[in-house]
Amino acid sequence: MISIIDVLRRLDAGEIAADWAAGACAEAIAAREADIGAFVRTDIARATAQARAATGQPLRGMPIAVKDIIDTFDMPTEYGSPIYAGHQPRADAALVAMARRAGGVVLGKTVTTEFAYFTPGKTRNPHNLAHTPGGSSSGSAAAVAAGMAPLAFGTQTAGSVVRPASFCGVVGYKPSSKLLPVTGIKCFSWTLDTAGLFAATVADAAFATAAITGRDLRIDRATPATPSIALVRTHLWGEASDAMQRAFDVATRAAEAAGARVRELELPQSFTDAFEAQDIVQNYEANQALAFEYDNHREQLSAPLRALLEKAGHVSSDDYDSARRIARRARSAFNDMVDADVILTPSAPGIAPEGLASTGRPIFNRLWSLLGNPCINVPGLSDQAGMPLGMQIVGRFGRDRAALEAAAFLERALRASAA
Amino acid sequence: MISIIDVLRRLDAGEIAADWAAGACAEAIAAREADIGAFVRTDIARATAQARAATGQPLRGMPIAVKDIIDTFDMPTEYGSPIYAGHQPRADAALVAMARRAGGVVLGKTVTTEFAYFTPGKTRNPHNLAHTPGGSSSGSAAAVAAGMAPLAFGTQTAGSVVRPASFCGVVGYKPSSKLLPVTGIKCFSWTLDTAGLFAATVADAAFATAAITGRDLRIDRATPATPSIALVRTHLWGEASDAMQRAFDVATRAAEAAGARVRELELPQSFTDAFEAQDIVQNYEANQALAFEYDNHREQLSAPLRALLEKAGHVSSDDYDSARRIARRARSAFNDMVDADVILTPSAPGIAPEGLASTGRPIFNRLWSLLGNPCINVPGLSDQAGMPLGMQIVGRFGRDRAALEAAAFLERALRASAA
Repeated sequence: MISIIDVLRRLDAGEIAADWAAGACAEAIAAREADIGAFVRTDIARATAQARAATGQPLRGMPIAVKDIIDTFDMPTEYGSPIYAGHQPRADAALVAMARRAGGVVLGKTVTTEFAYFTPGKTRNPHNLAHTPGGSSSGSAAAVAAGMAPLAFGTQTAGSVVRPASFCGVVGYKPSSKLLPVTGIKCFSWTLDTAGLFAATVADAAFATAAITGRDLRIDRATPATPSIALVRTHLWGEASDAMQRAFDVATRAAEAAGARVRELELPQSFTDAFEAQDIVQNYEANQALAFEYDNHREQLSAPLRALLEKAGHVSSDDYDSARRIARRARSAFNDMVDADVILTPSAPGIAPEGLASTGRPIFNRLWSLLGNPCINVPGLSDQAGMPLGMQIVGRFGRDRAALEAAAFLERALRASAA
Repeated sequence: MISIIDVLRRLDAGEIAADWAAGACAEAIAAREADIGAFVRTDIARATAQARAATGQPLRGMPIAVKDIIDTFDMPTEYGSPIYAGHQPRADAALVAMARRAGGVVLGKTVTTEFAYFTPGKTRNPHNLAHTPGGSSSGSAAAVAAGMAPLAFGTQTAGSVVRPASFCGVVGYKPSSKLLPVTGIKCFSWTLDTAGLFAATVADAAFATAAITGRDLRIDRATPATPSIALVRTHLWGEASDAMQRAFDVATRAAEAAGARVRELELPQSFTDAFEAQDIVQNYEANQALAFEYDNHREQLSAPLRALLEKAGHVSSDDYDSARRIARRARSAFNDMVDADVILTPSAPGIAPEGLASTGRPIFNRLWSLLGNPCINVPGLSDQAGMPLGMQIVGRFGRDRAALEAAAFLERALRASAA
């Protein structure tokens, strides 16, 4: 994998040229893209030329892989749907415009599931081509994992950043809700849709987000602050595989060995209710957000999405309003009852499932997507076959720097325990 | 003005044909559009044909004028900016798709200020062509006022629904934040942008919103429930014209005469802080939402918008986060201290200002846009020259039915007092 911070350090030192990262991506794409299928399209020549021209900005020509649910004015954006074949947006999404303003260059558009829901694209898991990379940000996670991009953008409505990051063994960072703008990103659920990003390390993700937003997200890479950690197994612990449960114990011991205060925290029933509420909010809003596509292009929707929208049309406003109240109460309860800096919980039920028909289940992500907390997948553990098992750090809403620093702490602790 | 409910009643009674409303709009447009300039474009022939084909749905072919900041798949959408000249969106905004699903037909696109900020379009006030219709939903308010459409869509970020409704003497309804989806509406500020609508009466606005969303917003037109009303003059009372101050007293007495419990309520300093915070949230987000346009088409932005975005680039994340905290605290304080059903406050500082260079000031709207409460402009009062002076009903967040019923109560009380 290509580290953003390492590239910038070597640029500073004059060890590499401005287009080095673009060239490294091009090499990895030439070597592995035919197998992995992370991209819908790339424009390496343009990215390379733009990287040569970029100077002085924080990202200095850093190539970015952009999920094809996110508009780009100079590359078609097809939302993973034949309805939008060849669709060329007039403008960049705000996130893309901000990234270019910060010196980033668009390397290509990555495979998304259909409208960032569940129907998968062509992408395979770089760790084992017979397994899914996860979704819906399939191509973005796989591209970073395979060294084809140092930075990739994705979105999460249920579990579409943290889950594929877990399956592909990369850092996936879903910031606090609306920290990154979703303007110009095809909407599935306006309450839940959250832009996020993938990178090789936690420090890379923090640096890139700071560069794009101007926020202070600096974390101490060498000696991150020691966090207090609440272990949250959730009511779905029984759904976690044996390998994931063992990995969770390994991560817990590694954090303790590195000095973290760790204790168990059992969430009350109101959080189980909130888990269920995520689905209601998502479906009610999807029925409205995709009303045009359903009414005008139904035959071009996948059968599962069509079925979802049919079902979603029957969610009542009362049920929706009730689900939003449950969410508000759970956000408040989180602040009242979580006295640790962050939560540690699995990123996914286990390794990436075999086969490409399903992108896996977001059951360990839905709750946090509804609550809007920052979530970071920390890679570093794997099963006996080498398939990644991600650990999820969940921070307090709006305290993204602290969440990232805790994730960096865990990342370092896992490396130390593996050594 | 054309009343939606009257048209539907007459359709039910077999008194008029399915395309009657489209025909009435066409007549008014032929008579007055050359002077008023409410529309960017219309397609009366198509609307008429669609109205003839529409049967059985709640809106049964009702013509809708759509602000040109809202995407339509079959009509260009130019956002009031030369940057988007001729721009044809691929899809309808969610609100438009839902309105068509409910049987509405798109009559045309109405004039918006540039990106729904302040730089005005061509529209004139139907009550006096030498005066502004207000903005940013200039054409939508004017179209309904001039009988050129029974229903029009607009958006409000600071005061862009309630203010032009006040200036043009129509009902303007800004629902609770996100009650109507903003997906497919050009974003200025994702926290603040709110879709709303214009109609002849409060009952028409309530009926149309219920038809589009499926929400229960039925109000008793004949005998609306008697509300308790808090009179909120705000810290900007001194900015209200003498005529507006007198109209406010007339409205207060009319409500009391009709049986409402009315008392004064002075909002504490925290609401003044929230008023200021609206500007910070709006500008910080506009800088990101319009990053593409600023970076790529700066020379095609108006000087005031360019200046705003230049200034907005210097709003820090800390200031923005602080403004959002102020907003959250004010929302909570509203619930704690307002024990009336609704607030009554002016819709605008006075009548529509003379001239077309400015669309007037949203100073009586900013606070409620930030808090997200439902707001309804109730027409019925005017100055000695007959220029409208609107009264604003502000309801509790999420209690839109109660807010609409209180607005209907005031509407009726004003009619009774004028009789």
